[in-house]
Amino acid sequence: MPAVELSPGLRPIEAVARDLDLAPELWEPYGRDKAKVKLEVLAQRPAGGKLILVSAITPTPAGEGKTTTSIGLAQGLRKIGKRSILALRQPSMGPVFGRKGGATGGGASRLEPSDAINLGLTGDFHAIAAAHNLLAATIDNRLHFRQTTLDPRQVLWKRTLDTNDRALRSIVLGLGGKLQGVPRESGFDITAASEIMAILCLAESRADLRARLERILIGFTPEGEPVTAAETRVVGAMTAILNEAILPNLVQSREGTPALVHGGPFANIAHGCNSVLATRMALALGEYAVTEAGFAFDLGAEKFFNLKCRQAKLNPAAVVLVATIRALKMHGGQALDDLDRPDVEAVERGLDNLEAHLDAAAHFGKPVVVSINRFPSDTQKEFDAVIRRVESRGVPIAVADVFGQGGAGAIELAEKVVEAATFETALRTLYPVDADPVAKIETIARAIYGADGVTITPAAAAKLAKARQLGDAHLPICMAKTQDSLSDNPKLRGRPKGFTITVRDIEFARGAGFLVALTGDLLRMPGLPARPAAERIDVDEHGRITGLT
Amino acid sequence: MPAVELSPGLRPIEAVARDLDLAPELWEPYGRDKAKVKLEVLAQRPAGGKLILVSAITPTPAGEGKTTTSIGLAQGLRKIGKRSILALRQPSMGPVFGRKGGATGGGASRLEPSDAINLGLTGDFHAIAAAHNLLAATIDNRLHFRQTTLDPRQVLWKRTLDTNDRALRSIVLGLGGKLQGVPRESGFDITAASEIMAILCLAESRADLRARLERILIGFTPEGEPVTAAETRVVGAMTAILNEAILPNLVQSREGTPALVHGGPFANIAHGCNSVLATRMALALGEYAVTEAGFAFDLGAEKFFNLKCRQAKLNPAAVVLVATIRALKMHGGQALDDLDRPDVEAVERGLDNLEAHLDAAAHFGKPVVVSINRFPSDTQKEFDAVIRRVESRGVPIAVADVFGQGGAGAIELAEKVVEAATFETALRTLYPVDADPVAKIETIARAIYGADGVTITPAAAAKLAKARQLGDAHLPICMAKTQDSLSDNPKLRGRPKGFTITVRDIEFARGAGFLVALTGDLLRMPGLPARPAAERIDVDEHGRITGLT
Repeated sequence: MPAVELSPGLRPIEAVARDLDLAPELWEPYGRDKAKVKLEVLAQRPAGGKLILVSAITPTPAGEGKTTTSIGLAQGLRKIGKRSILALRQPSMGPVFGRKGGATGGGASRLEPSDAINLGLTGDFHAIAAAHNLLAATIDNRLHFRQTTLDPRQVLWKRTLDTNDRALRSIVLGLGGKLQGVPRESGFDITAASEIMAILCLAESRADLRARLERILIGFTPEGEPVTAAETRVVGAMTAILNEAILPNLVQSREGTPALVHGGPFANIAHGCNSVLATRMALALGEYAVTEAGFAFDLGAEKFFNLKCRQAKLNPAAVVLVATIRALKMHGGQALDDLDRPDVEAVERGLDNLEAHLDAAAHFGKPVVVSINRFPSDTQKEFDAVIRRVESRGVPIAVADVFGQGGAGAIELAEKVVEAATFETALRTLYPVDADPVAKIETIARAIYGADGVTITPAAAAKLAKARQLGDAHLPICMAKTQDSLSDNPKLRGRPKGFTITVRDIEFARGAGFLVALTGDLLRMPGLPARPAAERIDVDEHGRITGLT
Repeated sequence: MPAVELSPGLRPIEAVARDLDLAPELWEPYGRDKAKVKLEVLAQRPAGGKLILVSAITPTPAGEGKTTTSIGLAQGLRKIGKRSILALRQPSMGPVFGRKGGATGGGASRLEPSDAINLGLTGDFHAIAAAHNLLAATIDNRLHFRQTTLDPRQVLWKRTLDTNDRALRSIVLGLGGKLQGVPRESGFDITAASEIMAILCLAESRADLRARLERILIGFTPEGEPVTAAETRVVGAMTAILNEAILPNLVQSREGTPALVHGGPFANIAHGCNSVLATRMALALGEYAVTEAGFAFDLGAEKFFNLKCRQAKLNPAAVVLVATIRALKMHGGQALDDLDRPDVEAVERGLDNLEAHLDAAAHFGKPVVVSINRFPSDTQKEFDAVIRRVESRGVPIAVADVFGQGGAGAIELAEKVVEAATFETALRTLYPVDADPVAKIETIARAIYGADGVTITPAAAAKLAKARQLGDAHLPICMAKTQDSLSDNPKLRGRPKGFTITVRDIEFARGAGFLVALTGDLLRMPGLPARPAAERIDVDEHGRITGLT
């Protein structure tokens, strides 16, 4: 391909594909800097790499830099001669324009083309929303034409948009008379929480994708009999809409490390992992596949092990737990607007949170490396306090300057990860899937969150009774819980004690293969903040975007 | 680029770009068979081509084959040695899964990759929806945080989806208490009817796109003062979402004729033309740019001249009016399920409809060529009847077998078009923009539809009074009217007489630069039929789609 203007340091995606020994018929370009990789790769190449999971302690609102550390680590592995590759989630446009802004790492450890990745990449989220909403429109169409036994008061399937839009959480649709459908209550979830997002991320093949879509529970008849997506006759069309979306996207980091970016369920309201297909592909294409599981270990990593690894028989070689001095100070009681001020004692108090996640990680029996994501305001005394405590547990730790130095700032981390990942260990999950759902939730709440127990509201209990009646009690649990605390109360920092987890509702996700337990007042459609990140974003006459990263 | 498996007869898009003398830095691949062309082309290449507009008579529900004829004509022009290029609209996924099915032409006159074009192409419609819905979410967010002077009862801006979903036409949102927004009535339009679709299609540049987005009228204060999108502060972010969507998409026909496919407003409920940028680009890259304006001449072509050509100073060289023997029989009174039966008298009666469109076309002073889109059931006697009548008016006519033979079936048509387009004629529009809106609507209704006059409902009259008060009376009119009749009653075939057009509502589209006049009971969000096309679509394990084209 002839020379074309790319961002500084970026190689044509063709060169990235060539480094991975991908023959031209195994990938397709999307622009000069993005590609989709075909699934035939998986049949041709054995999955020989080692899987490294990056998770974090309970983050500040700005995040711990889990993605930045993953990218920095993968770049660091390259610096020490290892063929690393990233398998990461695609950012959702909802939070990109809402509170969070872009989500492609940062500084010298960033994915490129960053703006395009933040603004929809190759359109997978939109395809997921289109498939989701075709099913929803078909359900209402069948109600309208009286072609279904569904009870309009018991439709479970909502609609979805990749927009933070609180006004769509709860709506009445079908108003305006008999030509406009059947009036009923419904709502929208964000696309990252769509069951189809989870299905795409857990599907093992196109055939599996289709079979999972067929299994989606869309509602009940007036007699309480389950109705699935299969009866709508549009699952073939939904699969066609997802025909390209099922292919992992290939991009690169600022240092040219290949990255498969595919799928993006949130870890608070969904299962929080990139696609199984992208992870498998990374294991087929690299020696070390670095992946991440969103927010803190209690959310993303728990679900990574119990949902994704259990189903896909993935077996990570090591876990990296990211912490920042700033977050530790927050957990130690320092105010959010005061986190720049050095305070060793606050750090030491905040280490309770880190230890809670290390205790949680111990249940999965994998070697753990703690990585401190360095900020300019950090001091050596604060590092020393963390290193002392972590090393006293026999856990290796490194301070990594991934934002400032990229791979060069993560060489010690990379070496410790390689060492930790030397020996193979068996995959361990936290609970047997055939346990009762309440027992599974209790196990997660006690072992991972440190709760004293679980309160099931009557609404949730009724759904669980239904699940048992339908034979769905054997499904694993996808916890939906705030990312701001180990508990279900976002205000409780550090390592809360003496609390219970309240499960207020249960959602069926038969296609994804789990039951969703909604805790606290967490909603599956975020709202925009009073000052959305969208207000800072602009684009000039030449298409150059500002304010996004 | 190395050899890659493409559909039979399809060339790599790189070869298509090379034929157009497009340097590699002026386009980006999307897959091996699609590309986006950069706007810099317009600065580098003069727009020297001749513009050919393809429209049609009032169609049967299956359509007259306007797109198929456009493609066949462009291919026929190539057969006689002319460098032709197509500028067409992208199909909307709503009707693809609804009543219509795919919309990429047919048989030997089809766009490729047909399935991908029908399923979203490069994602432009989704980007338009995302920009549209970000504005909507921001409006409700500002109501929620009381940051706006907007009256929640007077918000004009709705939400949008590219799905046929009648249940979303009329909704109540913001329910569920004070954390879930402000309850109010609203609804969804289909993306093809979004003002942002019209804006993208009429924008002359990125800067013009941004300026138009700023001008969108989103609603009124309690005192009736207008509030525009500019006040929401997210127009920069909306423009960023549209950053790639503003670039025309390059694909090809089955015979390898280049085609720019960009934008897709419906012609019944919107202005019905592909983007100005794609049309300009086609005029820069080809000798003959073949474009189409949706449904019949009364809808698409009227708006093509009065909205698109007037604004963009485009001056078509000739008009092709497509008719089928089947449609003429329908207009002559034959039943829809009996159109295969030869009936010369029915054809002769039905010619009234063709003549009405020829009379309408005469107002614009352009040479017209009638093209009969040949079907296997047609007979020579039926052709003769049409040819006699059309030639008696001095209008050239050709029978084209574009579906069966592609360009080879359109050589006579191509020759007659070249002859008709020989001499330059001045652009003529139907009405002066500074006339009163009612006068403009009256002129369209009388001259184009053959109506006796116009009835303005009180609701529409109130909006028109508002338009005059706001200084918007000078905007041209975008008529929203059924495609099934020259009148606003879809049951009146042929050339209806003695009817009036009822304007039941007016919508402001300041960013697009027109007022929308809604007639009859036409809605801007279609529904799915009792047996949606989606039911026939499927995809196999290898990603091969069936049932779409």
